[in-house]
Amino acid sequence: MSAPAFERVALIGIGLIGSSLSHAMRRRGLARTIVGHAQTQKTRDAALRLGLVDQACATAREAASGADLVILCAPIGVCGNIAEEIAPVLRRGSILTDVGSVKGAIVRDVGRFVPEGVHFIPGHPISGTEHSGPESGFAELFDGRWCVLTPPPGTDQAAIDRLSAFWQACGSQVEIMTAEHHDLVLAITSHVPHLIAYNIVNTARHLERVTDSEVIKFSAGGFRDFTRIAASDPVMWRDVFLNNKEAVLEMLGRFSEDLTALQRAIRFGEADTLYKLFVEARATRRGIIQAGQDTAAPDFGRHAPAGLAGGSKPSKP
Amino acid sequence: MSAPAFERVALIGIGLIGSSLSHAMRRRGLARTIVGHAQTQKTRDAALRLGLVDQACATAREAASGADLVILCAPIGVCGNIAEEIAPVLRRGSILTDVGSVKGAIVRDVGRFVPEGVHFIPGHPISGTEHSGPESGFAELFDGRWCVLTPPPGTDQAAIDRLSAFWQACGSQVEIMTAEHHDLVLAITSHVPHLIAYNIVNTARHLERVTDSEVIKFSAGGFRDFTRIAASDPVMWRDVFLNNKEAVLEMLGRFSEDLTALQRAIRFGEADTLYKLFVEARATRRGIIQAGQDTAAPDFGRHAPAGLAGGSKPSKP
Repeated sequence: MSAPAFERVALIGIGLIGSSLSHAMRRRGLARTIVGHAQTQKTRDAALRLGLVDQACATAREAASGADLVILCAPIGVCGNIAEEIAPVLRRGSILTDVGSVKGAIVRDVGRFVPEGVHFIPGHPISGTEHSGPESGFAELFDGRWCVLTPPPGTDQAAIDRLSAFWQACGSQVEIMTAEHHDLVLAITSHVPHLIAYNIVNTARHLERVTDSEVIKFSAGGFRDFTRIAASDPVMWRDVFLNNKEAVLEMLGRFSEDLTALQRAIRFGEADTLYKLFVEARATRRGIIQAGQDTAAPDFGRHAPAGLAGGSKPSKP
Repeated sequence: MSAPAFERVALIGIGLIGSSLSHAMRRRGLARTIVGHAQTQKTRDAALRLGLVDQACATAREAASGADLVILCAPIGVCGNIAEEIAPVLRRGSILTDVGSVKGAIVRDVGRFVPEGVHFIPGHPISGTEHSGPESGFAELFDGRWCVLTPPPGTDQAAIDRLSAFWQACGSQVEIMTAEHHDLVLAITSHVPHLIAYNIVNTARHLERVTDSEVIKFSAGGFRDFTRIAASDPVMWRDVFLNNKEAVLEMLGRFSEDLTALQRAIRFGEADTLYKLFVEARATRRGIIQAGQDTAAPDFGRHAPAGLAGGSKPSKP
C-alpha cells in the first residue's frame, strides 16, 4: 500500500482489541495518525508509552474530531453514550464502526445518533484472548480470523469496500451479513460457550464434597480448557449477555434440551447413543482445523509448565 | 536411578497413555524390558516400529506373564475381561495397576480377579491430549500433572511407595485418595466438562438457522476451545460415562441448576449478578495457572495458522 488507507483513525477505547488494532495498523502503515481515547489517565499513559496512539485524548469527542475512521472499541453498554457524545464532530464522508460482539444492540444504540453523510458500518472481529487492557494487544490477533461487517440496508458500497480492505490489511477475512444473523451465529459460537464456561467454573467453586484446591489440582482433566474463556473481561461479557438476550436464550434452550437427552442416555446406559454422538463431534473439530481456525497440535500446543523437568513440547505434532 | 525400577513392565493397551508411559520409562530407564499387548496387528507393528515395546504380544496373558509391573491402559469397559484373562499368570509380589478415568468401576471389575499376593493399586494420571493411538504418545505428557492412586484398604505400603516413585519418575506428582472420592472429583474436573463439550458440539451441528460452515468459520469466538476435548477417544469416553454414572449425574444436576439460575439472570437483565459471577471466575483461572496446571500465555499460546501472514506468536506473553 503506497499511501495510508486513512489519515486519522480514532480508537475509542484502548483495551485488547483497540491496542491490537493499533499494532496491526502500524504493521502495515494503514493510518497516518492514530488517536485514542481511554477513560482512565492510566490507560492513556500506557497507550502513549507503548506507542499505540500518537495522541491520547481525555474525551471521546476530542479523539473523534476530524477522524476519517472512528472505531468504537468499548463495551457494548457504553457505545450509545459515546455515539451521542461524538456525533456533533463526526466528519461527512467518514466511517464509523465498532468491534462489539453483539450487532443488533449497536444498530439500536448507536445508529440513531449517526449524522447524515457518515457511513455507519457495525463490525465484529471474531478474535480475542482472555487477556484485557492496552498491554495485552498484538499485531497478529486478527490474522486468519474472520471479521463480520453488518452494514444497514442502503449503506454506501464504496465505504463497505474501504472498511473491508482495512480489515483485510489487518490480517482478517471479511464476511458481510445482517446484524440479526450475526447475533444468532455468535450466540452459538461464542456467547453460549462463554456462558457455559462461566457456569461450570461457578458450579465447581460451590461444591461441598470437592474442594477448590482439588478442582485446581486436577483441572488438567478438561476443566482448565473452560477456565481460559471464563477469564475474559467481565464488563464486556456482562454487556454481551444483556444485549443479545433473545438469541442467547434461544441457543441455551437448545443446549439444555440436548443436555437433558444426553443425561438420560447416561442414566439408562445407552452405550450406542453416546458412542455415536462422540464420534460425530470429531468431525467438527477436524473442520475447524482444516479451516485454519485452530491448531492441530495436541493440547493446543501448550508448553509444559516452566521449571519442571522435560518442559519441551511434544515431539510428535 | 542406578538400576531400573522394574525388570519387566507389561503395557496392556498401547494408545496415547500406554505409548506415553513407554516414552517416559525410556527417558529415565525405569524398566529393563517393556512388553506390550494391543488388540490389532497394526498397533503391535506400530509399537515395535516406534520402539515403544521390546516385545509385542498378541494376547494380554502373554504380555503380563512374568511381569513385575502390569499396567492396564485400555478402555474401562474391557479391563474386567483383561483381568480375568491375565489373573493366572500374575506373579506373586508384582504390582497390577491401571490408568482409567474411573476408579470405582476398576475396583469392582478388576479387583475380584486379583490373586492373593499381587498388589492391586488402581491409578489415574490426570493428563492426556485429544489425540489417540500409539503414535500420539510423548515422554512429557505426565510432567507436572497429578497422578491419583486409589489403593484399597489394607494395600501393602511398600508397594504403594514403589508405584508412587514410579509415577514421580515419569514426571508426575502423586496423590492418594479413595476410589469413591476420585470419581466425584473427576466428575467435575473432567467428566462433566467433556460431556458439556460433546453436547455443545452436538447442539451446534443440528441448528436450522446457523449452518455447520458458519459454526466452523466463527468458532474462534470461544466454541473451538470446546471442540478440542470433544475430539477425544469416543470408546474411552463412552466407558467413562457408563461407569461413573452416579457422580456424573450428581455434578450434572448441580451444573444444570446453576445454568438455570444464570439463564434467569440473563432473562431479567440482572447486570450485577452476571458481573459478580464473571469476576469470580477469574480467580479460579489464576489458581490453575499458579498451580502450574495451565499456561498463562494468551489463547493457550496457540500459534497463528501456518501459511497466513504474521504467523508469529504474540510478542507479549
